[in-house]
Amino acid sequence: MSTRKNAVVLLSGGLDSTTVLAIAKDQGYNCYALSFRYGQRAVAELEAARRVVQALGAGQHVVADIDLRVFGGSALTADIEVPKQGSESDDTSGSIPITYVPARNTVFLSFALAWAEVLDAQDIFIGVNALDYSGYPDCRPEYIAAYEKMANLATRAGVEGTQQLKIHTPLMEMSKAQIISTGLSLGVDYAMTLSCYDPDESGASCGGCDSCVLRLKGFAEAGATDPVRYLK
Amino acid sequence: MSTRKNAVVLLSGGLDSTTVLAIAKDQGYNCYALSFRYGQRAVAELEAARRVVQALGAGQHVVADIDLRVFGGSALTADIEVPKQGSESDDTSGSIPITYVPARNTVFLSFALAWAEVLDAQDIFIGVNALDYSGYPDCRPEYIAAYEKMANLATRAGVEGTQQLKIHTPLMEMSKAQIISTGLSLGVDYAMTLSCYDPDESGASCGGCDSCVLRLKGFAEAGATDPVRYLK
Repeated sequence: MSTRKNAVVLLSGGLDSTTVLAIAKDQGYNCYALSFRYGQRAVAELEAARRVVQALGAGQHVVADIDLRVFGGSALTADIEVPKQGSESDDTSGSIPITYVPARNTVFLSFALAWAEVLDAQDIFIGVNALDYSGYPDCRPEYIAAYEKMANLATRAGVEGTQQLKIHTPLMEMSKAQIISTGLSLGVDYAMTLSCYDPDESGASCGGCDSCVLRLKGFAEAGATDPVRYLK
Repeated sequence: MSTRKNAVVLLSGGLDSTTVLAIAKDQGYNCYALSFRYGQRAVAELEAARRVVQALGAGQHVVADIDLRVFGGSALTADIEVPKQGSESDDTSGSIPITYVPARNTVFLSFALAWAEVLDAQDIFIGVNALDYSGYPDCRPEYIAAYEKMANLATRAGVEGTQQLKIHTPLMEMSKAQIISTGLSLGVDYAMTLSCYDPDESGASCGGCDSCVLRLKGFAEAGATDPVRYLK
């Protein structure tokens, strides 16, 4: 039996979460990758997540079904246009983009917590980032700290004091360029990842959404070339 | 347009959550009832929830699909026997029953939070109870307080400081008899509710599981008769 510790790693198939999986594996964890089918338009994300698990390896990969569309309310899950770079430029300073999904990280972490408890894992990894978070409230360190505290009160282990759950956020203080450099140094092939909010049917990235622009800027600053296909 | 405030009410269709819905309505809230189809064996619960919404009324009733079975690990969702009263008697003092579902209230509250944000609601009602919680860690007041703090850091409203989310737990300090008396005083017909962990195909309660025993004891102490059908 392996003596490595189990960890649950939230994996969207994007650049950030893929780097997180590589970091967690590099730290010696036996990783259980968790993805979600949550009514998002970018189902190509899930194919990316499967490619990543195949390439990097994981004890298990679970794709959990959740449907936040029953509540409506976001560009990522509802049937409205994804804004292109600049279209939100009038109110970017501290405001929250309409691509926000209500309570998304809270929901995702809750599923991770359920799985961690079943696996007897004390460690959850999530690729949130305070620098590039673009106004997402549930990507800030104070939110993660509050979640961790709540989680330790929610579970048997927390009550019995036998173990403390830890939420790892290795990307929290990194720039996109630092994230990319870290992944490259760990041998990650970013061709298998997908960051675009609005890929075409072939899986090519649009190059124009906030996520694509941030990613391309990160590769440029890291002095590397983004290997994914872009429409423009 | 109604001037009543919106609230999300977690509704399983059991005695407790039905009483909570009656209390929230009595306090003047426009209630949005949220139930879950989460792989539990007691699907009769959902039929009870529908009866309750029909009788008490709600702005909307959403049944969200979540499948915690992908993670395994509980008598309520896995295919093992539900313990009858007494079979756990050797370790009831502070221990956690095997009918515990991993991170259940954390998952349920996370969905409630998502819906509350879409509805612009500041109020979530949940029927947790500290007296009868039988060792469920996520039914304690300190857990609820930590959840509320986390939730206020997770959402736009919390970040922007425009409103504070409140998790209401009106049953927290009540005995089962007090819960029943409160519901009866508000006109609740408990015949439409279902508490049994293991009802038969006709929807009749077993009378022997922890939940049935607690319920029957509550009615006896309240000096009332339980109108649901029992097998014995």
